Amino acid sequence: MTVSTDLPILKALLGEPVPPAGCPSRFVLNHVTSKWGVLVLLALAEETLRWGELRRTVDGISEKMLAQTLQILERDGLVHREARPVIPPHVEYSLTPSGSEVVEHLLPLVIWAVDRGPEILARWEEPTGESGSPR
Amino acid sequence: MTVSTDLPILKALLGEPVPPAGCPSRFVLNHVTSKWGVLVLLALAEETLRWGELRRTVDGISEKMLAQTLQILERDGLVHREARPVIPPHVEYSLTPSGSEVVEHLLPLVIWAVDRGPEILARWEEPTGESGSPR
Repeated sequence: MTVSTDLPILKALLGEPVPPAGCPSRFVLNHVTSKWGVLVLLALAEETLRWGELRRTVDGISEKMLAQTLQILERDGLVHREARPVIPPHVEYSLTPSGSEVVEHLLPLVIWAVDRGPEILARWEEPTGESGSPR
Repeated sequence: MTVSTDLPILKALLGEPVPPAGCPSRFVLNHVTSKWGVLVLLALAEETLRWGELRRTVDGISEKMLAQTLQILERDGLVHREARPVIPPHVEYSLTPSGSEVVEHLLPLVIWAVDRGPEILARWEEPTGESGSPR
């Protein structure tokens, strides 16, 4: 089965169906589709959040991974970090316009995953029956 | 800046903006957005491919990572593996209908990354100028 809709656009941009090694798109995809990158971007899709709020919203993320993920997304220009000179001082994180663009593209994929996740996970809970099959 | 289009759908499905720890969607997202998962799915978007063809199309993938990625995507029900009883025998890989669905959702994200990749990579090649700033 082949996919039609956007594939010709990708091939026109790249000259091939898959970004080659060293293509900047691979670098960017690794950031925005990383395990925690997706979830941090989603958390900020709805509202500006402080560090502690982000930590609670992205259930399960460690301090270290949150710091690392935010640094990468800020350097990419997808997340804006603002230190608020109030008392006590705090830092707020929000999506930049580019960050909002990427979330618009991530959301249909995440909705698909939420919709189909239980069915796909159930396949992993069945006995394989093919465990001895060669590649 | 907030995102409007699909966020209410995600919140209606989940009851919150970010899939919680243990949500099957996180399990599935980790497969379809993995570094090599994205590229293998894209390679199969256009046509059924044999092992060696896949290896060449997904520039840079090792034998080990290709085997592991295909096993995961097959178990997810996104890739179909067919052993052809011809001489010499060979195995073909193609997208299932679910695999085609996920590629339809991945393509706009990949096109965005191809389009914006050079600009984002350039930000990483600039001196930071903020290297001493606190979190």
